[in-house]
Amino acid sequence: MAKAYIFGGGGHARVIASFLDVAPVFVVRTPAGEARLPGSVMLDDEYFRELPPGDAYVGIGDNAARQACAARLRAAGVKMPACVAPTAFVARDAEIESGAVICAGAVVGSRAHIGPDTIVNTLSSVDHDCVLGALSQVTAGVTFGGGVKVGANGFFGVKSAVIPNKTIGDNVYVMAGSLVIADVESNVVMGGNPARLVKRV
Amino acid sequence: MAKAYIFGGGGHARVIASFLDVAPVFVVRTPAGEARLPGSVMLDDEYFRELPPGDAYVGIGDNAARQACAARLRAAGVKMPACVAPTAFVARDAEIESGAVICAGAVVGSRAHIGPDTIVNTLSSVDHDCVLGALSQVTAGVTFGGGVKVGANGFFGVKSAVIPNKTIGDNVYVMAGSLVIADVESNVVMGGNPARLVKRV
Amino acid sequence: MAKAYIFGGGGHARVIASFLDVAPVFVVRTPAGEARLPGSVMLDDEYFRELPPGDAYVGIGDNAARQACAARLRAAGVKMPACVAPTAFVARDAEIESGAVICAGAVVGSRAHIGPDTIVNTLSSVDHDCVLGALSQVTAGVTFGGGVKVGANGFFGVKSAVIPNKTIGDNVYVMAGSLVIADVESNVVMGGNPARLVKRV
Repeated sequence: MAKAYIFGGGGHARVIASFLDVAPVFVVRTPAGEARLPGSVMLDDEYFRELPPGDAYVGIGDNAARQACAARLRAAGVKMPACVAPTAFVARDAEIESGAVICAGAVVGSRAHIGPDTIVNTLSSVDHDCVLGALSQVTAGVTFGGGVKVGANGFFGVKSAVIPNKTIGDNVYVMAGSLVIADVESNVVMGGNPARLVKRV
Repeated sequence: MAKAYIFGGGGHARVIASFLDVAPVFVVRTPAGEARLPGSVMLDDEYFRELPPGDAYVGIGDNAARQACAARLRAAGVKMPACVAPTAFVARDAEIESGAVICAGAVVGSRAHIGPDTIVNTLSSVDHDCVLGALSQVTAGVTFGGGVKVGANGFFGVKSAVIPNKTIGDNVYVMAGSLVIADVESNVVMGGNPARLVKRV
Repeated sequence: MAKAYIFGGGGHARVIASFLDVAPVFVVRTPAGEARLPGSVMLDDEYFRELPPGDAYVGIGDNAARQACAARLRAAGVKMPACVAPTAFVARDAEIESGAVICAGAVVGSRAHIGPDTIVNTLSSVDHDCVLGALSQVTAGVTFGGGVKVGANGFFGVKSAVIPNKTIGDNVYVMAGSLVIADVESNVVMGGNPARLVKRV
């Protein structure tokens, strides 16, 4: 079985570790991380000096920091598979791109497409024919009806939802507990039930 | 293993296919469907002329159209088992009637009863002692507390919920994101948190 | 395999039974329970007279009654393991204390801690680094973001949620469908989206 390296030492890094069959090596910036983590720890500059063979996962929740780390790994030619938790369901004809993480209990339906480095968090569902762009964060308990399209760099707060067949632009932030019932343009914050424009960003 | 036939060629048909161990034949009205589907496709009139042996599933989300198709199949004596997704949980003492579909991640609790041709969609839960009538559509991310009774032909929008031990009539439409906290009479649309009468139908 | 005894004869008792590999004996106060339950039934005073070997589970939803029953069992030296449903996900490094129940489809994340006799009900999630105190009731479809801390004797209604990293006191009741977005002091009822103080108790 391939060795696994997880970049990061906080909650999301340990969440990814909990989905793997192998005990991973955590790759961290500072030795301060060592005391907080189970298993072995490698410093970031050691990893890039050695480029050890194995799978790499980016265990960083923040979209911008995750993007920077993933870009550096891809530039170095590192293998970055998608990570699917044991109790997640992914339909045979769904597509999960490199670096995406499908967390425990989550569901990705028929012909859904999850872009690179996007996180579908705990017990969230991305139903049939949905398309999620790159580098998005679907937090816990989020529901997408069938056929929803979302651009890149989205954020969906805890227990937000989108009714079927709506289209959402790039760089959209949906506040926790919101219900999106109409198409949403790019570069906005949406909130409420039903969700309304909170501000442009 | 029995051959499987799924009536329909859209999203819900492919969702059912994603839960089966066998590659199904999709049964469609028009050849237009052929190009859109993985696997083999049979025309509707071919199927009813031949009545091939095997299990039939109705992969149609709309309640009225699903009812018409299921009635025609039952009149022809076709076997229509319930369909339970691999990651769904159905308690040993729950009852799932013919033609019902329990989708990925859904839960049906102890002594719950799911009526014929009713859909319990992605990550929805029907807790212990609930009774759902025939031909209803529980969409994704819906929560029923224990002991809820629902009549026939219900519709529960994305992320709606009903608190325990409430009774809901026939032909009730609950809008997405609504929370039902009281009994509901038949033939109404309910919406909001807490849910209020929107209109009679 | 150890024999299993479940105290109680209502819905929650049967829910626990549906998660066990063995057919349990239900332990009830009155013979009236016998007619309502599958499997064999033992009277409460018979059990405590005999103290039969095996695992005991308290199948009582009400927090105060569950506490009384669990205290009596612990005083008698009875073994009370945690109960985890087959389709639940519990991270390897999470801790589930004695008497806690993790229901079908529920998720308990990395380094989360579930206190004794606490129920995490159907399709609820307690994400990484959350701490739930003793004797709480997380009902169905509830979402806790990562790092939420909750005191003892909490109640979280159907489809309520707490955003990440909030701290909630003891004896807090969160109404169904509420979204908690700030720290909450002890001994209060919270309701709404966002959740506001409803009353002190």
